[in-house]
Amino acid sequence: MQAEIISIGDEILIGQTINTNAAWMGEHLNTIGIRVHRTTAIADSKEEIVSMITEALSRSQLVLITGGLGPTKDDITKKTLAEYFDMPLESDEQTLERVASFFRQRGLPVLAVNEDQALMPKGCTILHNLRGTANGMWFEKDGKVVVSMPGVPYEMEWLMENEVFPRVMNFFKRPAIVHRTILTTGVGESFLADKISAWEDSLEEQHIKLAYLPSPGAVKLRMSAYGGGSEEELKAIIHQKENELLAIIGQHVFGFEKDTLASVVGDYLKKANATIAVAESCTGGMISHLITEIPGSSSYFLGGLITYNEKIKIAELGVSEDLIAKYTVYSEEVALAMASSSLKTFGADFTISTTGVAGPNDSDGVTVGTIWVAAASKEKAVCTKLRLGKSRERNIIMASNAALNLLRKEFLQINR
Amino acid sequence: MQAEIISIGDEILIGQTINTNAAWMGEHLNTIGIRVHRTTAIADSKEEIVSMITEALSRSQLVLITGGLGPTKDDITKKTLAEYFDMPLESDEQTLERVASFFRQRGLPVLAVNEDQALMPKGCTILHNLRGTANGMWFEKDGKVVVSMPGVPYEMEWLMENEVFPRVMNFFKRPAIVHRTILTTGVGESFLADKISAWEDSLEEQHIKLAYLPSPGAVKLRMSAYGGGSEEELKAIIHQKENELLAIIGQHVFGFEKDTLASVVGDYLKKANATIAVAESCTGGMISHLITEIPGSSSYFLGGLITYNEKIKIAELGVSEDLIAKYTVYSEEVALAMASSSLKTFGADFTISTTGVAGPNDSDGVTVGTIWVAAASKEKAVCTKLRLGKSRERNIIMASNAALNLLRKEFLQINR
Repeated sequence: MQAEIISIGDEILIGQTINTNAAWMGEHLNTIGIRVHRTTAIADSKEEIVSMITEALSRSQLVLITGGLGPTKDDITKKTLAEYFDMPLESDEQTLERVASFFRQRGLPVLAVNEDQALMPKGCTILHNLRGTANGMWFEKDGKVVVSMPGVPYEMEWLMENEVFPRVMNFFKRPAIVHRTILTTGVGESFLADKISAWEDSLEEQHIKLAYLPSPGAVKLRMSAYGGGSEEELKAIIHQKENELLAIIGQHVFGFEKDTLASVVGDYLKKANATIAVAESCTGGMISHLITEIPGSSSYFLGGLITYNEKIKIAELGVSEDLIAKYTVYSEEVALAMASSSLKTFGADFTISTTGVAGPNDSDGVTVGTIWVAAASKEKAVCTKLRLGKSRERNIIMASNAALNLLRKEFLQINR
Repeated sequence: MQAEIISIGDEILIGQTINTNAAWMGEHLNTIGIRVHRTTAIADSKEEIVSMITEALSRSQLVLITGGLGPTKDDITKKTLAEYFDMPLESDEQTLERVASFFRQRGLPVLAVNEDQALMPKGCTILHNLRGTANGMWFEKDGKVVVSMPGVPYEMEWLMENEVFPRVMNFFKRPAIVHRTILTTGVGESFLADKISAWEDSLEEQHIKLAYLPSPGAVKLRMSAYGGGSEEELKAIIHQKENELLAIIGQHVFGFEKDTLASVVGDYLKKANATIAVAESCTGGMISHLITEIPGSSSYFLGGLITYNEKIKIAELGVSEDLIAKYTVYSEEVALAMASSSLKTFGADFTISTTGVAGPNDSDGVTVGTIWVAAASKEKAVCTKLRLGKSRERNIIMASNAALNLLRKEFLQINR
């Protein structure tokens, strides 16, 4: 079976909203064995919506639509769908009550535009949205399904998980698909491609597709087995191929699937019952954020000091003024001192630090993208000098990941 | 004229890569008066690519393609385009030399897969990629244009700015489009819709479209004038409508276009020659990151302390142990003490602080999403209690923005 996604909204076409919904849906549909073969973004226009649904139904069994269900005047999806499926809008009591109590609980008046949100196409299956005021809708036609959901990610995700997936799993027979993602860091895409060329050639006869997914500082390798057979059979083949791959490039692999450098470091710290603190200059809080976006990180993350100002490096971290005078803040010596000093400041087992020029311009004669990352324990401290590019955003994320990776490699010695 | 975007890559369809390229292109094309009316993501499949280009050329004058140009085996776009336009691949000397020197400079060997990157369809216009090894390509056919670019955002953006936009502006006549985005915070979409309903109705006769773009803690209102006439005429109409809007909801407006709460706060601090520091608990570095992702923030941001651990709050910030014992770390009193203490710690003019439960679970009997944000100057300190939801990610970003907005409203008193 084929599924496709239609994202409705001018804001997507003109780039004011990035289409994260399509990515979320594609990923989650895959885990239940449904492959999305096309994703289209179109304008809030009745003609576009009607022609797009017609087109999609001509080639796909499942069509998932997001957007255009809000209370405002640019939201025309519901009305268009009601016309398309020839189902007049009528007020749904349950929805009306839910919407009214939503506003009452917040001490807000119930407006006419909110009452209109209870109008639903007569005959569709209403997918009640317990995270917001705009319901989803499920339409069936000639053995095919069209689902419409609001574009707010938080609401769409709730509806997919609670209303759409269970219905989809009942409605469609699905072939098995198995994916496996192996995460590498510190080496480039073409280096990897060259190293694993023979292995990659061997995937074809097993009906496994391989994708290289580069991101700042990392390359993901994703195997996808579509070759028929049961899920268990596909998993066994993927498992064998993974072991072969690890034998070739294992030293560059830091994790699997949804792992991040911060989550891998966090897992190790939890197991070792150890703690971490950070001292960030040019990464400006990004390392702390990467660590703390992980639920449960409070069990090993003690805290961080962001020393954007030289005086703070001296006063709060205890980095020596003479050292800074001698080597400047942009130096290996200061990076190492920041890591070592913060061991004491926070009473942590491990620390990581950064200093350098994130950009977009050179600073004090130091070329933009020159960044030192360091890591320390009571026993030793290590430092690496990075030569990155001119993009501030990219430098911040690449230096943050390099610092986490330095700790992982030099201290945590995680052998995958 | 109509433009459309085709994003090639299985990784987009299965959601391992979010399609930020389409957003970037849509936004930048708009600024030169080109409206993208459709964006489609398809698989790395020859049949899909060929049928999609055929389809796109049947309705659009400009077709922009990204992805599938890398050195690896899953990259088939170039070969497919060469066949589609019937242009045999031949090695381009200039590219071969550039690719070779790219690797030589990095002390890396030039591999056969890299040499293949110099193979270009004979007769297309080569768009030399000075940020990477995969060139872009420009094809013309029956007065229409197809452009192919690599999917790496950093490379695509460089090619668009340096090679594609100048050529597009020469090739096509374009009508004027003027957008204006007004940024609100602290109020919901339906509240705004109700307040500005009459104003919104008045937009139609001026041929202005309005879109509501909600994100965590903020709603953007975007006006788009497509109504014919010169750019100056459209700008004048938009300007008049903006003034009318500000008269109605001005108190909820914090900025325009690409402003963020952090950039608005930063602009004020720069003008006032004042400094800021932050003390973050549950936001874990996000506020510092939001502030420091802005180039030049080092002129007003002194630093931040992330006090994930209670002891750090006491030892480093100087929050009183008794106060924590009496009220617990999750309290208005501790939020205020964190803000006030960090004035001294950092020697800053203003501070903001956060404490609470980001989630996803309750902690020490405090409901997930209960977060206090505070702001302080030498003269006073203020605190707001937030009741957010269960999503850790959402709570971190909403609390960070609420803290920045509290400072903006209570201290900076920026009147738009």
